[in-house]
Amino acid sequence: MDRPLSRSMPGRAVHADGQVAVARSLPEESPVALVFDGTTQAVMMATPGDIADFAVGFALSEGIISSIAEIEAFEEVSHDRGIEARLWLRADRSKRLLARRRAMAGPVGCGLCGIESLDQALRPLPTVDATTVLSRLDVARATDALSRLQPLRDQTRATHAAGFLQPGKGVVVAREDVGRHNALDKLIGALAQAGTDPATGAFVLTSRLSVELVQKCAFAGCPALIAASAPTSTALRLADEAGITVAAFSRDGGFDLYAHPERVLSGVADVA
Amino acid sequence: MDRPLSRSMPGRAVHADGQVAVARSLPEESPVALVFDGTTQAVMMATPGDIADFAVGFALSEGIISSIAEIEAFEEVSHDRGIEARLWLRADRSKRLLARRRAMAGPVGCGLCGIESLDQALRPLPTVDATTVLSRLDVARATDALSRLQPLRDQTRATHAAGFLQPGKGVVVAREDVGRHNALDKLIGALAQAGTDPATGAFVLTSRLSVELVQKCAFAGCPALIAASAPTSTALRLADEAGITVAAFSRDGGFDLYAHPERVLSGVADVA
Repeated sequence: MDRPLSRSMPGRAVHADGQVAVARSLPEESPVALVFDGTTQAVMMATPGDIADFAVGFALSEGIISSIAEIEAFEEVSHDRGIEARLWLRADRSKRLLARRRAMAGPVGCGLCGIESLDQALRPLPTVDATTVLSRLDVARATDALSRLQPLRDQTRATHAAGFLQPGKGVVVAREDVGRHNALDKLIGALAQAGTDPATGAFVLTSRLSVELVQKCAFAGCPALIAASAPTSTALRLADEAGITVAAFSRDGGFDLYAHPERVLSGVADVA
Repeated sequence: MDRPLSRSMPGRAVHADGQVAVARSLPEESPVALVFDGTTQAVMMATPGDIADFAVGFALSEGIISSIAEIEAFEEVSHDRGIEARLWLRADRSKRLLARRRAMAGPVGCGLCGIESLDQALRPLPTVDATTVLSRLDVARATDALSRLQPLRDQTRATHAAGFLQPGKGVVVAREDVGRHNALDKLIGALAQAGTDPATGAFVLTSRLSVELVQKCAFAGCPALIAASAPTSTALRLADEAGITVAAFSRDGGFDLYAHPERVLSGVADVA
């Protein structure tokens, strides 16, 4: 679809000694309704590109489908006020989604009491046991490699990206979005559509690493996360439980290694 | 409540010439269930502090209440798996929330078709017409002033903050969170509890500036947003419509001025 992903916006750059007219290229945001079998599951503010990837990735991350084969049809509809991503599911999966919706007692709020809804927030994660191994250089070069696949960030300096790294090959595919969660969902959807198994590599993120990103990684079956910035302590505990390797603060050729370091062959001696 | 907001996590810092054991102080995240009259409205992953501020600010931002006087009681309950923020509303407001819940047709998903839900995502914003005026120095020093009120960021280098700036006084109150939306909700709740009118100043954010932050600002009646990083073009259009002044890329004493520049007295001549 032919929607602009950024727009030039006029402003004034103000400094101590004066001000000057500027025009900066800034990222667009659009509401995207994720609609399954005619009912909206969520509306997200997102960069209005790669919508099919986004819808497929969201469906996988949220457990609405367990494989792309369960999607019967996809349609993307542009409106004045946003974008509808319409998915129709295979009959058996469609019935399961309906049952799940009925099992949720009430309308908005979610109908659950506080304790039930807390249990859902930290739902048990599948364990990732892929034996994929990364070299120190794979990890050390990951965010630089991702950086070369971020055209919207190059224009706007304001968007996140998620990339898929395979050992020895660098980042083979990447997706961008104003939101870091959306960027990862788009990547997961792109891999599913290309038939690439996330177990064969690592997710590389421009952002910090929080619980929800670890959850998406576990449900995608990807054994490693490499983040440019800090993880939360809670995200590290979850990654440890789910068998996911975490490298963070990945910048300037160095990184911190936390959960499940055994997948990273350091190739250097301990200095302490 | 006495929950740790950060935790020291062991890792290995890997560089080209070796690796060394490190322990970094990283921020905690906790599920927080926002429960109104016994039903969960949302569960957010958040920094587990300032929960009452968060609950009040969320209720205001989402239009569940229009003033803090509509809250009858608040209770904070810690569980193993997270925190419940329980609010009870005044009877008239409680009835309105119930009616709103009933008006939403179905269970989860939200029961709306895609077009209806897109209309809700960009709901009309109230217009902010406060005549508060900021000097160039108020704005230029805003993110530095906020920086001095970020103890959790000082420890972890990984959390966002939202502050309230009053002309000539700098940032008078600030709140921190792993999430930028939560930080602003906490700030809005803190101001409401202190009886400080958001119309008398500006919100200062460590983050980028997206649509949802403009929406929160408009519902709080705050006339200006100052962000350390980039705005989205969509956020700027919304701010323009809602009468909100936006300064972005506020760093090193300079900033870009976009929507409604009339509230900022530049005190410097145009150089172009």
